[in-house]
Amino acid sequence: MFPFKVLNQENIKELLDMRTVIELVERAYTLKEKEEASLFPMVFHEFVPGKADMDIKSGELVGANIFGLKLVSWFGDNPSKNLPAVVGTVLVLDSRTGAPLGIMSGEFITMMRTGAAGGIGAKYLARKASEHLVLVGSGHLGPYQIIATLMSMENIKKVTVYNANSFEHANDFCKSIKDKLLELLAPYNDLDQEFYDQMLQRIDISFEATQDIQQATEQADIIITATPARKPIIKKEWVKPGTHISCIGADMEGKQEIDENLFVNARVFVDDVGQAISVGETEVPYKKGLIATNQIEEEIGSLILGKVAGRVSNEDITIFDSTGISLQDLLTANYLLEQATEKKLGLITTL
Amino acid sequence: MFPFKVLNQENIKELLDMRTVIELVERAYTLKEKEEASLFPMVFHEFVPGKADMDIKSGELVGANIFGLKLVSWFGDNPSKNLPAVVGTVLVLDSRTGAPLGIMSGEFITMMRTGAAGGIGAKYLARKASEHLVLVGSGHLGPYQIIATLMSMENIKKVTVYNANSFEHANDFCKSIKDKLLELLAPYNDLDQEFYDQMLQRIDISFEATQDIQQATEQADIIITATPARKPIIKKEWVKPGTHISCIGADMEGKQEIDENLFVNARVFVDDVGQAISVGETEVPYKKGLIATNQIEEEIGSLILGKVAGRVSNEDITIFDSTGISLQDLLTANYLLEQATEKKLGLITTL
Repeated sequence: MFPFKVLNQENIKELLDMRTVIELVERAYTLKEKEEASLFPMVFHEFVPGKADMDIKSGELVGANIFGLKLVSWFGDNPSKNLPAVVGTVLVLDSRTGAPLGIMSGEFITMMRTGAAGGIGAKYLARKASEHLVLVGSGHLGPYQIIATLMSMENIKKVTVYNANSFEHANDFCKSIKDKLLELLAPYNDLDQEFYDQMLQRIDISFEATQDIQQATEQADIIITATPARKPIIKKEWVKPGTHISCIGADMEGKQEIDENLFVNARVFVDDVGQAISVGETEVPYKKGLIATNQIEEEIGSLILGKVAGRVSNEDITIFDSTGISLQDLLTANYLLEQATEKKLGLITTL
Repeated sequence: MFPFKVLNQENIKELLDMRTVIELVERAYTLKEKEEASLFPMVFHEFVPGKADMDIKSGELVGANIFGLKLVSWFGDNPSKNLPAVVGTVLVLDSRTGAPLGIMSGEFITMMRTGAAGGIGAKYLARKASEHLVLVGSGHLGPYQIIATLMSMENIKKVTVYNANSFEHANDFCKSIKDKLLELLAPYNDLDQEFYDQMLQRIDISFEATQDIQQATEQADIIITATPARKPIIKKEWVKPGTHISCIGADMEGKQEIDENLFVNARVFVDDVGQAISVGETEVPYKKGLIATNQIEEEIGSLILGKVAGRVSNEDITIFDSTGISLQDLLTANYLLEQATEKKLGLITTL
C-alpha cells in the first residue's frame, strides 16, 4: 500500500496563488520544450451531445518525477441540480515507480492555470507598453485572466469586457471584478507585502463593459478570448497592428473565437501543436489551409527559453493559442501535494 | 465539494469475493452488448521501452450510472526497490452529474476481474463435461483463474500447470495453490456455508506441474493462458477437438500465447473487438489476415445474453480472447463503493 493524499477545493484555495502558478505553468511549458515532459493522447466522450461530456488529459513530466491525468466533466444540466457544471479531478503519480501520490479537486487548479496561460501569452508576446486589455467573455475564467495579465504587464490602464450574449452580464462582471481580484491577491498580504501593494496599484484601473466589440478591438493592445464560442467574435479587419491575442476558449473541435484569417500574417505560438491543430483556435485556420504547422512559429516553451523570437516588431500581430495541457495541471498539482505536506493540510491515507 | 471515498487494498480484500466478481463481470459484458456501456480509447505510454509503462483504460456504464478509469503502471525494476511491479488505481464517477465518487487500489480488483474473465470463458464455451484444466503460466494471476474456473465448471478433476521458463516455478505454484485457493474461498465460510463446502470439494483435486506442454495440451479440455509471452506457446496441431481456450495474457501489441492458426477454424469470442484486434490474442491472426472481424462470432456479452450460439458441437475448438476492459474494473469498483458504505469501511472525505 502507498501513502496517498487527498486535497479538496478548500485546501487548494488555501495553498495556491497566481504568481506561483505562472511560474509553474512556465516550467511546464519549458519542460515540454526540453523533452522532459510529454502529453499522452486525449480521451474525449460525449454522454449527451451538447449537454454532457468528459475528457481525460494525461501526460508525464519526467523532469519533475511525476505523471498523471486530469479528468474534467461538463454536465450542462448540473446547475439546475445545484451542482457545478464543470467538475475536475487531478490524479498524480510518481514517474519513477508508478506509485499513486495523490488526488485532488481540479476546478480551482484549472481556473488558475488557464489564467496563467493567458497572462504568459501577454508577457512574452504583447508590447511592453500595452495599456488596454480587452477581455472577450465575462465568465468564471475572466478574473484569473485579468489578474495573471496584470501581474505580467506593468502598464495596463484599462480593461474592457465584452460578452456577445449579454451586455448586462459584462457590466455586472465589471462591477464585482475588483472584489474578486482582491480575493486572488489576498495571499500576498501575508506572503509579500511589497508585491501586494504593487498589485493593489495595478488593479486600481478602469474596468468597463462594452457593447461595441469592433471599437474595443480597434483600441486594444491585448485581447484575451475566453468564451465557449463556435463562431469568430473578433474580425480580422478590426485588429490593429501590434495587437497581441491570447486565445483561451477553444479546447474542443469546432470551437472558434477569432477570425481564422488573422492567422495568415500573425506570429503564432501554441502550447502544443497537436492539440492546437485538432481542438484549439488553430484548428479552423489549419483545416482551411490558412496556416501550416511549419508556419506556427513554435510552442510557447521555446519562446520562454529564448530559443526563438516572439514579437519581432511593434507592428506584429501575435497570437498565443492556449488549448490547455495536462502538464500545467500536473505540475500545479504536484506543487500542491508538496505544500500540503509542508503545511499539514489535506488528508493522508493509504491506497 | 463532493463526498468522496478512498478504499485501500486491505478494504478491498475484505469486501470482494470471486462469485460476486463473476456476476459483476458478466454484467459488465452484457451492459456493453446492450449498449448501456462503452469503452473510451485506451491511452498507453512507455516510460522506458521494455522496462516501464502505463495505460489508462476508461469507459462508461450508463446502465449502472457510472463512468471512470483505471490507470495501471508497470515498473519492471520496482521489485528490487521492494515495491510491486504492477500498480493500479481505479477512479469512479457518477455518469449523471460528473461528480467523483471514489478512488481505490486497482491490483486486487485486476486479479479478481481477470480471473473471472477466464472462468466466464470456460463457463460459456467449454464442454460441460470438461475434466482437465491446463494453466499456462504460474504467476500471480494463476490462482484467480483456477478458482473462477472451478466455480464455473462442475467436473474438473485435474489441473496441470506449465511455466515455459521454469518447471520449478510451476511446481512451487502447485505445492502452494490449495492454500491460496482456500484464502480466496474464505469469505464463503461466513457468507454461504453450503457453497463453501461445495467449493472445498471442487478444489480437492490434483494439481500437477508439467514440463511437457505438448502432452498437456493434447489431454486438455480447457486451456487458460496467462503469461506475458510474445511468441505462441500452444501449437495448433496439439489442440484436440472440443478444447476451449481462454486467452488472458495478451493485452498489449505484440503479445501472443497461442498459435495464430488456431483462429482459422475456431469459434472465437472476445470481450471487445477493437481491443482484441489491436492488443489482444486476436491481434496477430487479424493482422496476418487469418481472421476477419466478421469471423469473430461476437463479443462475449452477446453469448451471455443468449443472442448467439457459443459452442455448436463437442468437436468445436472455442477461444475467448479476454483483453481486459475498463467496464470490468468500474463495475467491480462501484460495487466496492456500495459495500464500503454499507459496511462502513474505507475513508470518506470530500473532493
